[in-house]
Amino acid sequence: MRKYKDLAPSLRTIMTPGPVEVDPRVLRAMATPILGQFDPEFTDIMNETMGMLREVFQTGNEYAFPIDGTSRSGIEAVMVSLIEPGDKVLVPIYGRFGHLLAEIAERCGAEVMTMEQEWGKVFDPGQVIALMKRERPDVVAMVHGETSTGRMQPLQEIGRACRELDALFIVDAVATIGGTDVRVDEWMIDAAIGGTQKCLSVPSGMVPITYNERAEAKIRRRKQVERGLRDPHVDLSCSGRTIRSNYFDLSQLQDYWGPRRLNHHTEATSMLYALREGLRLVLEEGLEQRFARHKLQEMALVAGLQAMGLLLFGDPDCKLPVVTCVQVPEGISGDSVMHMLLSEFSVEIASSFGPLKGKIWRIGTMGYSSNQRNVLHVLGALEAVLIRHRAKIDAGRAVQAALDVYMEAKGTVYEASAGVR
Amino acid sequence: MRKYKDLAPSLRTIMTPGPVEVDPRVLRAMATPILGQFDPEFTDIMNETMGMLREVFQTGNEYAFPIDGTSRSGIEAVMVSLIEPGDKVLVPIYGRFGHLLAEIAERCGAEVMTMEQEWGKVFDPGQVIALMKRERPDVVAMVHGETSTGRMQPLQEIGRACRELDALFIVDAVATIGGTDVRVDEWMIDAAIGGTQKCLSVPSGMVPITYNERAEAKIRRRKQVERGLRDPHVDLSCSGRTIRSNYFDLSQLQDYWGPRRLNHHTEATSMLYALREGLRLVLEEGLEQRFARHKLQEMALVAGLQAMGLLLFGDPDCKLPVVTCVQVPEGISGDSVMHMLLSEFSVEIASSFGPLKGKIWRIGTMGYSSNQRNVLHVLGALEAVLIRHRAKIDAGRAVQAALDVYMEAKGTVYEASAGVR
Repeated sequence: MRKYKDLAPSLRTIMTPGPVEVDPRVLRAMATPILGQFDPEFTDIMNETMGMLREVFQTGNEYAFPIDGTSRSGIEAVMVSLIEPGDKVLVPIYGRFGHLLAEIAERCGAEVMTMEQEWGKVFDPGQVIALMKRERPDVVAMVHGETSTGRMQPLQEIGRACRELDALFIVDAVATIGGTDVRVDEWMIDAAIGGTQKCLSVPSGMVPITYNERAEAKIRRRKQVERGLRDPHVDLSCSGRTIRSNYFDLSQLQDYWGPRRLNHHTEATSMLYALREGLRLVLEEGLEQRFARHKLQEMALVAGLQAMGLLLFGDPDCKLPVVTCVQVPEGISGDSVMHMLLSEFSVEIASSFGPLKGKIWRIGTMGYSSNQRNVLHVLGALEAVLIRHRAKIDAGRAVQAALDVYMEAKGTVYEASAGVR
Repeated sequence: MRKYKDLAPSLRTIMTPGPVEVDPRVLRAMATPILGQFDPEFTDIMNETMGMLREVFQTGNEYAFPIDGTSRSGIEAVMVSLIEPGDKVLVPIYGRFGHLLAEIAERCGAEVMTMEQEWGKVFDPGQVIALMKRERPDVVAMVHGETSTGRMQPLQEIGRACRELDALFIVDAVATIGGTDVRVDEWMIDAAIGGTQKCLSVPSGMVPITYNERAEAKIRRRKQVERGLRDPHVDLSCSGRTIRSNYFDLSQLQDYWGPRRLNHHTEATSMLYALREGLRLVLEEGLEQRFARHKLQEMALVAGLQAMGLLLFGDPDCKLPVVTCVQVPEGISGDSVMHMLLSEFSVEIASSFGPLKGKIWRIGTMGYSSNQRNVLHVLGALEAVLIRHRAKIDAGRAVQAALDVYMEAKGTVYEASAGVR
């Protein structure tokens, strides 16, 4: 047998758009010995988690629970359950994750209509609504925070139009949940998907979703009880077209998360412990305070990057507050800079995809990673690495500019020391 | 805001057929700070995990990696990738989880043929092979260890027949991997799914799979690169019928786990740390020694149950060594016994499903839970609870009978103390 060593990864400053650093309290929760899945203490934990998810999603929906899988598993669960083969689905795309929504909808057997916006911008809601009025889709699916381009789409007008035109509105809020406002009920979102490994600072592997009664009505029509668990006196066959997935069948999942507790999968115990602790941290901090913290870190980071002489990418009017995209300066290898940041400073930032690959860096200020220590460290490290790469930058200014933001926010002033003069 | 307390679950003795107690070393591994998904230290951990999975699956397959989800997500990933709509799929069913295979195959659009065996027995391989010769299925899918009935199906002859008749052989080894022999290559299994939360003693939420070149050839024909990641010069469109799931598309997943490292999901970091540590524990113990330990615990448990006067359920010739099914004695409420075991002794055992619901108890001896301390504790507790329920049992014998098994295995003799006479 080959020898496999003890797990001992380096400690990183993770400033990507996810996964980001996990709160130590969440790590500790995962080390808790497990309970069985039908232990009353465990079902209490499931119910508590649903309660906290409702608060974080700002919703009164009955159903708010996690899917056991990474973020895109939540997207697929919502889509495969809400899209019947042949349904008309409109996907306005303004980055990579819009393409993902379109791809998943296609695989669900939808008739997919896309509209594309140049990467770095978002849609004028009126433009989307005009197409909706013409095409009358059954479902509209959109990304709220597009990490590939660092943009955020306003959703409220589109949500209202969906309600008026009787389309279901599915929103990928993977990047935004817990970092900036996601008002599921107010914005008339019928089904939303949040991410764990971004602003909630819980490891990847679980994905919170929520959906309202309009969505549930469609799911119920497609309901089917699992072979081997069926009770012929209770479980009638479904009237809609059967959901193509068992694992992602929300009609079965809501019977497992609901009071019926009908066995489906074996809930991922330790990940649920992690999610519960992550949500508890969000609610202890308070949503408003948490969003303000994210905004402050963004301001400091942006001030630092601009003071260095770097140019931001994308339309500033729709900037995603938790991801900052920076143009790689002319003549500099973006990959080489990222490699040196990781190897010498243990700092991780990200590149992007498709048309933006190698052209921008993406720096996240998400969740537990979104703190002053990390922002100052990434600015100092990036400056040093750029100097090493002979980039033309204004040395010494970035960290000072970020400090100015923090000092102003706190009202702190550091006097010049008398002894130094 | 409502107050949510610190996570502080009771410590349980978990003797169900899964999830079972998690090894403390695995719990500790999960508390390790995370790495980013493309950090070279992390991709090394991915590669090491693949290496260890090959050893545990006893295979030379290139692809052996986990799916991020619970056990049935691995089954669905394999089925949705290997079954093209319209494929003829044979599922021999001898318990609940055979029904699950049939249900998933149906949802994949297969033409499903089932054959059913009475619960408590398994199939004579000749019977399955005869039907295969007549019906010529494209795929045969079977459960190796059926936890709902506590039975284990011999696979080798069916595997050979699948190879001869050019059918793909998919095996659900969720309950058996790490607890008893699963010889993927020798038994000619084309794709196998293992479970984490059973004999590997890793929490639920990740599922190891492996598949060979025959399976890969089918997957490759259906390959499609994700929208938004496509390179028109490299990524040709697929010739087969597109896989209906993005999350479970093994052609994309193998590009993520393979040297190309094409971004798909964000790997579930902490669960991968857990799986890696769980596999390391298996290989440190050694497969043969581990299987022998499971066998010893089963012998002690069975000796104890029988000494108490309880009757086992099912055909002893095909007993699953890691799950023991016991008939609930006449006039006793199985649920009440389980409830008292949990409430008063913090011991969890399980009931079963469908025709066996309330009729049997199922006691697991899996992974970290499969130890002398637990077996003696569950026997003592069950005896006390049955006495409290006025069951007619032989008091005082169960623990002694189990001790006899352990003493004989170790060669230890405890003399009667001189002082007591």
